[in-house]
Amino acid sequence: MHYPLSPDIQPEFCSNGTFMRLPCEDPDAKLAVIGLPFDTAASYRTGARFAPQAIRQSSMTLFPYHPVFGNYPFEETHAIDAGDVPVIPHNIGRSYALMEERIGNLMEKGIIPIGLGGDHSVTLAGLRAAAKHFGPLAMIHFDAHTDTWDTYYGEKYWHGSTFIRAYEEGLLQPSKVFQLGIRGTLNHPGDVEDSRRLGFHVITTSGLDTKGFGAVLQEMKTAIGDTPCFLTFDIDFVDPSCAPGTGTMEAGGFSSRETLKMVRALKGFHFVGFDLVEVLPQYDAGQITSLLAATLVHDFAGLAALRLKRDEPVFEKASTPE
Amino acid sequence: MHYPLSPDIQPEFCSNGTFMRLPCEDPDAKLAVIGLPFDTAASYRTGARFAPQAIRQSSMTLFPYHPVFGNYPFEETHAIDAGDVPVIPHNIGRSYALMEERIGNLMEKGIIPIGLGGDHSVTLAGLRAAAKHFGPLAMIHFDAHTDTWDTYYGEKYWHGSTFIRAYEEGLLQPSKVFQLGIRGTLNHPGDVEDSRRLGFHVITTSGLDTKGFGAVLQEMKTAIGDTPCFLTFDIDFVDPSCAPGTGTMEAGGFSSRETLKMVRALKGFHFVGFDLVEVLPQYDAGQITSLLAATLVHDFAGLAALRLKRDEPVFEKASTPE
Amino acid sequence: MHYPLSPDIQPEFCSNGTFMRLPCEDPDAKLAVIGLPFDTAASYRTGARFAPQAIRQSSMTLFPYHPVFGNYPFEETHAIDAGDVPVIPHNIGRSYALMEERIGNLMEKGIIPIGLGGDHSVTLAGLRAAAKHFGPLAMIHFDAHTDTWDTYYGEKYWHGSTFIRAYEEGLLQPSKVFQLGIRGTLNHPGDVEDSRRLGFHVITTSGLDTKGFGAVLQEMKTAIGDTPCFLTFDIDFVDPSCAPGTGTMEAGGFSSRETLKMVRALKGFHFVGFDLVEVLPQYDAGQITSLLAATLVHDFAGLAALRLKRDEPVFEKASTPE
Amino acid sequence: MHYPLSPDIQPEFCSNGTFMRLPCEDPDAKLAVIGLPFDTAASYRTGARFAPQAIRQSSMTLFPYHPVFGNYPFEETHAIDAGDVPVIPHNIGRSYALMEERIGNLMEKGIIPIGLGGDHSVTLAGLRAAAKHFGPLAMIHFDAHTDTWDTYYGEKYWHGSTFIRAYEEGLLQPSKVFQLGIRGTLNHPGDVEDSRRLGFHVITTSGLDTKGFGAVLQEMKTAIGDTPCFLTFDIDFVDPSCAPGTGTMEAGGFSSRETLKMVRALKGFHFVGFDLVEVLPQYDAGQITSLLAATLVHDFAGLAALRLKRDEPVFEKASTPE
Amino acid sequence: MHYPLSPDIQPEFCSNGTFMRLPCEDPDAKLAVIGLPFDTAASYRTGARFAPQAIRQSSMTLFPYHPVFGNYPFEETHAIDAGDVPVIPHNIGRSYALMEERIGNLMEKGIIPIGLGGDHSVTLAGLRAAAKHFGPLAMIHFDAHTDTWDTYYGEKYWHGSTFIRAYEEGLLQPSKVFQLGIRGTLNHPGDVEDSRRLGFHVITTSGLDTKGFGAVLQEMKTAIGDTPCFLTFDIDFVDPSCAPGTGTMEAGGFSSRETLKMVRALKGFHFVGFDLVEVLPQYDAGQITSLLAATLVHDFAGLAALRLKRDEPVFEKASTPE
Amino acid sequence: MHYPLSPDIQPEFCSNGTFMRLPCEDPDAKLAVIGLPFDTAASYRTGARFAPQAIRQSSMTLFPYHPVFGNYPFEETHAIDAGDVPVIPHNIGRSYALMEERIGNLMEKGIIPIGLGGDHSVTLAGLRAAAKHFGPLAMIHFDAHTDTWDTYYGEKYWHGSTFIRAYEEGLLQPSKVFQLGIRGTLNHPGDVEDSRRLGFHVITTSGLDTKGFGAVLQEMKTAIGDTPCFLTFDIDFVDPSCAPGTGTMEAGGFSSRETLKMVRALKGFHFVGFDLVEVLPQYDAGQITSLLAATLVHDFAGLAALRLKRDEPVFEKASTPE
Repeated sequence: MHYPLSPDIQPEFCSNGTFMRLPCEDPDAKLAVIGLPFDTAASYRTGARFAPQAIRQSSMTLFPYHPVFGNYPFEETHAIDAGDVPVIPHNIGRSYALMEERIGNLMEKGIIPIGLGGDHSVTLAGLRAAAKHFGPLAMIHFDAHTDTWDTYYGEKYWHGSTFIRAYEEGLLQPSKVFQLGIRGTLNHPGDVEDSRRLGFHVITTSGLDTKGFGAVLQEMKTAIGDTPCFLTFDIDFVDPSCAPGTGTMEAGGFSSRETLKMVRALKGFHFVGFDLVEVLPQYDAGQITSLLAATLVHDFAGLAALRLKRDEPVFEKASTPE
Repeated sequence: MHYPLSPDIQPEFCSNGTFMRLPCEDPDAKLAVIGLPFDTAASYRTGARFAPQAIRQSSMTLFPYHPVFGNYPFEETHAIDAGDVPVIPHNIGRSYALMEERIGNLMEKGIIPIGLGGDHSVTLAGLRAAAKHFGPLAMIHFDAHTDTWDTYYGEKYWHGSTFIRAYEEGLLQPSKVFQLGIRGTLNHPGDVEDSRRLGFHVITTSGLDTKGFGAVLQEMKTAIGDTPCFLTFDIDFVDPSCAPGTGTMEAGGFSSRETLKMVRALKGFHFVGFDLVEVLPQYDAGQITSLLAATLVHDFAGLAALRLKRDEPVFEKASTPE
Repeated sequence: MHYPLSPDIQPEFCSNGTFMRLPCEDPDAKLAVIGLPFDTAASYRTGARFAPQAIRQSSMTLFPYHPVFGNYPFEETHAIDAGDVPVIPHNIGRSYALMEERIGNLMEKGIIPIGLGGDHSVTLAGLRAAAKHFGPLAMIHFDAHTDTWDTYYGEKYWHGSTFIRAYEEGLLQPSKVFQLGIRGTLNHPGDVEDSRRLGFHVITTSGLDTKGFGAVLQEMKTAIGDTPCFLTFDIDFVDPSCAPGTGTMEAGGFSSRETLKMVRALKGFHFVGFDLVEVLPQYDAGQITSLLAATLVHDFAGLAALRLKRDEPVFEKASTPE
Repeated sequence: MHYPLSPDIQPEFCSNGTFMRLPCEDPDAKLAVIGLPFDTAASYRTGARFAPQAIRQSSMTLFPYHPVFGNYPFEETHAIDAGDVPVIPHNIGRSYALMEERIGNLMEKGIIPIGLGGDHSVTLAGLRAAAKHFGPLAMIHFDAHTDTWDTYYGEKYWHGSTFIRAYEEGLLQPSKVFQLGIRGTLNHPGDVEDSRRLGFHVITTSGLDTKGFGAVLQEMKTAIGDTPCFLTFDIDFVDPSCAPGTGTMEAGGFSSRETLKMVRALKGFHFVGFDLVEVLPQYDAGQITSLLAATLVHDFAGLAALRLKRDEPVFEKASTPE
Repeated sequence: MHYPLSPDIQPEFCSNGTFMRLPCEDPDAKLAVIGLPFDTAASYRTGARFAPQAIRQSSMTLFPYHPVFGNYPFEETHAIDAGDVPVIPHNIGRSYALMEERIGNLMEKGIIPIGLGGDHSVTLAGLRAAAKHFGPLAMIHFDAHTDTWDTYYGEKYWHGSTFIRAYEEGLLQPSKVFQLGIRGTLNHPGDVEDSRRLGFHVITTSGLDTKGFGAVLQEMKTAIGDTPCFLTFDIDFVDPSCAPGTGTMEAGGFSSRETLKMVRALKGFHFVGFDLVEVLPQYDAGQITSLLAATLVHDFAGLAALRLKRDEPVFEKASTPE
Repeated sequence: MHYPLSPDIQPEFCSNGTFMRLPCEDPDAKLAVIGLPFDTAASYRTGARFAPQAIRQSSMTLFPYHPVFGNYPFEETHAIDAGDVPVIPHNIGRSYALMEERIGNLMEKGIIPIGLGGDHSVTLAGLRAAAKHFGPLAMIHFDAHTDTWDTYYGEKYWHGSTFIRAYEEGLLQPSKVFQLGIRGTLNHPGDVEDSRRLGFHVITTSGLDTKGFGAVLQEMKTAIGDTPCFLTFDIDFVDPSCAPGTGTMEAGGFSSRETLKMVRALKGFHFVGFDLVEVLPQYDAGQITSLLAATLVHDFAGLAALRLKRDEPVFEKASTPE
């Protein structure tokens, strides 16, 4: 039996360095946590390369049972911690290739990856790998920013262009992409409009507030259905008071409680990959950001486990694209 | 006149080391703040032994009048700061005995104690003292955890078993025990169910959210009535963004504002003791946790003073047990 | 073209030391950010003298377009950063004179000042300058405290007496003064009642919560109308979890999201001056307080720009006083 | 027996808020620690008002016996903690008067004060009190700065003018004044030369390094002899690596070990007062600055106790002035 | 080839959670790093339970070659990271037993342990294991304190009594025990004299300074010779400026540079065990304490590897005791 | 008169964002501080992009006169703050080009640059610019590392290969290159030997300690003479206790006092450029690292000003290369 070691066997402060002390290998694994410590694509604060370590350390106080989902996500999925991809801070292209390859390898084996970023650029590698396996994807994207800016400092690949690149590469089904929580000042209105022009659904923080998450959820269910879906979560979706340890904070986000309630409502989607990005431990206070991140990873695992239990042929090569 | 010294007499940054600069003795005292700096029973982060100092320091900016209750809790009760119990970090049993004795001494004199923990194990000492004086108690318990686990690392006495031990020792009237705010991952569903099996009312954070505190309050009033009641408050009840300085944070709790509203609604209960536990100043950010803790202590004093004013024979030896 | 430099021209981490990298001069300027680094009037924690620097540094990640107002506040107003007033920490009177003079100079040129405090005493200088130009003012005041205490330590000028002094000097139209967010323990009930006795409207945090901001806004619109109005924002209005970097925290305030929603609803008032006070960077966590402060300054600029666009003769010497 | 409570009686983390848990009164007291939390005279960083609390807290781990002097300084002198002088942050003059009065009261009773600053302006109050009792004083002054600048921001009383003011007031015997450890950049060479022109001995850090402390000590013994002497220690004498928690750091000072060796060599002087200034806890790291400060206070007590033992009529009204 | 992974294979920030990314097992291992996260025996600050994690994390920037010794300590010894002993924070006795057993198991296999504490109580477990294998031991002990106090709070087992207990249990050859770096205030002179009375050599910081380490080294060589020797290093030996992250700091220790020079001079001793204790990451600044600790562990490994190379029958059951 | 503004004109906490409040332009400028906020070439911790801001902020407490050199470096040289080069974090090549161009522009005008890094890769840009103007250079290099590793993660341009690249590009006269302070663990002995094989002089920390700096200085004078010389200073040369805010700390360096003494002895060299690299403000403690960095910049300015005063034709196109 390999679910996270009970504290009766090993106290929580005896880390072995893996997420929730998961094993590194399991022949039956269907879920894997994998570190993506790449942060060179950040535009302002850097340091997300230390996030995988910090999130793993904060995961030590999590327990195996998910009380909202009523399941044991890690045990049921024979989850593993697949370690960190050895990215190259000085070379974005080579790093993408390495991340895509490792994530792809997991998918080949029928393993759902939960990537621990890294800045938000790492999601492009995840989407490439997933689209290769499942075809163009639906996507649920929590973030204060759309990350659909074209270039910055004249560079095409950086953490603010991830989703325009993904769009250009045909990795996404635009009408099945939802960007939730967008807020903050802009260069010009086009920053958000461009995203809508791509066909993405952009729901601002204030839009979410007004509409209510329930209504948005219904829209997502209708639009996405059972399409293979990627969930990417930028920790700056939540308010800086709940996640000070991040790179480009925007005041005025949702609280942790509100956020967890939204994530836990995402039952039933056909998630084929997850990531949690933009945690910067150096700017954290009392480790609240990395604890929230670890909790979200537990939730993602719970969502994956719920779905897998339904005995559906989840990993069949891709539903029909749009 | 002995209520907390006005800043006109002594600036707030001139601490004399007591809570709100209370005197250490008063023959008419009916309320006492008492430090319980024991933290050896913690399972993960330690350091609550420094909490009494930190909470006292943060209390320096509090003023004597409680605007919600409309009273002067410390003046009206001739409140004192009874100092710290000289606990023994290397010996749980002896520390319990010392805390029980000192708290009991206060109760003998008709003084309501507000204990400043320490980890949550200190509440067992408080309950023992109170039950000896008042018989089996009602209890209102704010916490992210039920603390009714049996053993941990094979040990019976630690900060997660406080209330199963209290149950076994007959210190509580189970049907008059309410645990509010429970949340977070579990070893297995039994972690919460066990608590219910003891007869305790367990209201999770999400239950509180759904039902509303008003409804829960009504249930508590009905069940508890005028039974002598202990209020124990684990600071991890609130969200880590509001209380990063604690030992076993759980993401997704209530905010400080929501929390204070609940506590301030608890008028009319027959409180015979209070404590505020699990503040860890080393992990705090900007002293927000200890300020919140000090504010809660002020509220507890307000609740006590309100009740005492009603001239009821509060300290008569115990209402009829269940 | 002088609005804040695009990150495509200069990365955000290349500060030139001004707010959002604004120029220091512009002949057409109608808006100015000005540092008021005076903090000697604080009663407890000090250090707000470093706030202007910290807020400017946090402003580096803000962008020119305000998505809620739909305008470019800094570009439209030819906004400048007028630097810091060289206050004298050892002399309150001389510092007031210097601040009043510099703010007055801006007003002479038809420039709306946004002051970056400093402790809350600096607002007296701003009100003096504004009342000289516009006559007795309306005021919207966000704060946990009324700051209408008379003396403290026997001194008349300190950060808790700003508004009683302003009242005595005839700078305000009392029935057009709204103090929002008052909460926390008091010396005695008079602390708040005194403010009401002056004729000010005092809305506590819990009052705001009960009534809803919409109702309060309506009252303000009715009472204030188009009277020249000063907006002063003490960062301790928000909860310590969102603004730990301040001097006299009060637990239980509104969140950043709730706060921004209120401020952004203040469209249409005839604002002739703003300030943002009581940020203490040394106590901040992850720079969340100074980022929130910078965001509020952006909002103030947005409100000013909206109003200026309506082509009204805003800076005509004072509407008729009450 | 009243020397600091043994940890066997009360654990070190059970602070009662006094220095080393000293009593607040003792009829036979010959030594007193007294807080001087005044910091309005600082020119750059502020916050020394919190130093007395912080130094007291750090004193909790000190033990009664001084191994270098071989004495029990606090027991032998019946030392007390006289609390904090209730200074007025908004009024320098009134604060000086209060401090002078309280220190003077101690001296009247034959008690040697050890002042815990506060910024370096507090020393003027100490010198005034001491000179009134003992006539013009010798002084040993550890500091990175001479503090003999005339005015600053046009103000005469601030933490950089303390010793020129003391000189002007005739409180010092200039040829018996030694300023040790001066270093750092200057406005112009006169900053140091002015001090020499007053007749003070100025020994720079590099001078101390070259000459050796032994030689300087000999000079001091020769010059000062048995003249009543004040020892004032600005914590910025030591290198910022050993004392980051201070207001105007200068790189390149001595280490803690080197510093303690110097202070412990000062046996035999006729010390009539001490102070330790410019600790700013908010800027400290791991409490190393306040621990060093507390250790120096222990050393000062040791020096005082050594001298008192020699049964000399220490407090006779003043030796012959120069 | 299993020495620490080159950064060319895996960037330094890709931790796998072990010391220098060592493997967890190797049939030829002769050296092991082992975590001893027990800190319940601390008397003041706690939190050393998190030290093994922190030291491992700081070890990521260390490289395999030791330039002073000219060897590859980890490669040459086939070093492993044996993980953490699952200690029980609430039970000192059971924790000792577990640590002794695990360390003993390593010794059975001919593996030299380098323990990562934990507070200084863990050394008793190490000495018990080592003495069982090698008979009464020599010991070189770096520390600010002798840790030969009898009881504290009435308890026999705590971090200040380790070496009197070891003496009583006959684990040491007293004349071959050297305690280096003792300093700081004492309860009474006996605190140090007691240690000498046991027959230990006590060299204070100031003694080391005066004599020079060379002379002390010579004494140690003469006294200890080839006796199996345990090296225990309490990080508070160094000055708080170099190691703020510890439990009971004493101002005035040696610098890191001076310290490393001493440790690197200990070539030739017959070390059979090492430990590094009293690192408290929560109090660290910039991770300088854990980096110094990791560097010392590298040095210990270097000393062990040097000695092992000499092909001596190091692990033969014990040289003749005294 | 344009030397740094006196605090009598503007308090030190009124930053205008430039180093010591220097002007941004002066037609007679011979010295310029210039920010090089590039940190993508770092291998471990990142964040040096925020160093120029932090060093400028810490420079606020420096004064114009250098007491050791007896000059006014900034006034005498009409020094300016040339702002930050707008580097591109996602593109090393383009960033080098931009930095080289801007530094070259300064040199064209006869201005000596003092670069504020950034990671150590920025020095390659400085050397390229300088060698273009002055031919192959002498170099004095303070650092814990030689930075002559070839590739890392397979990349040629990173902060550890700066000097092998400079060598290959013929920017240096190898026999006139001195690397001082090298220490720490290595991948293999070649890490240092390779540097010597290039012809560089490598003096380790322990070599410096043994030989004494005086002897090394003599060697440098003999070897370098009047050759145009670049001084590059990696802040990790000093011990982590004095400079915790850096990227790849090595325990056991020199103290700040020892370091400043060395730098101040470098009078007479023909310095044509300086830089100060690898300050990471996020990891700093109490701003001691950035204060030390600012102090070193003041020293560099002092060295430059001393030399310029000698009226030598300093900027004539290059002495004869080796």
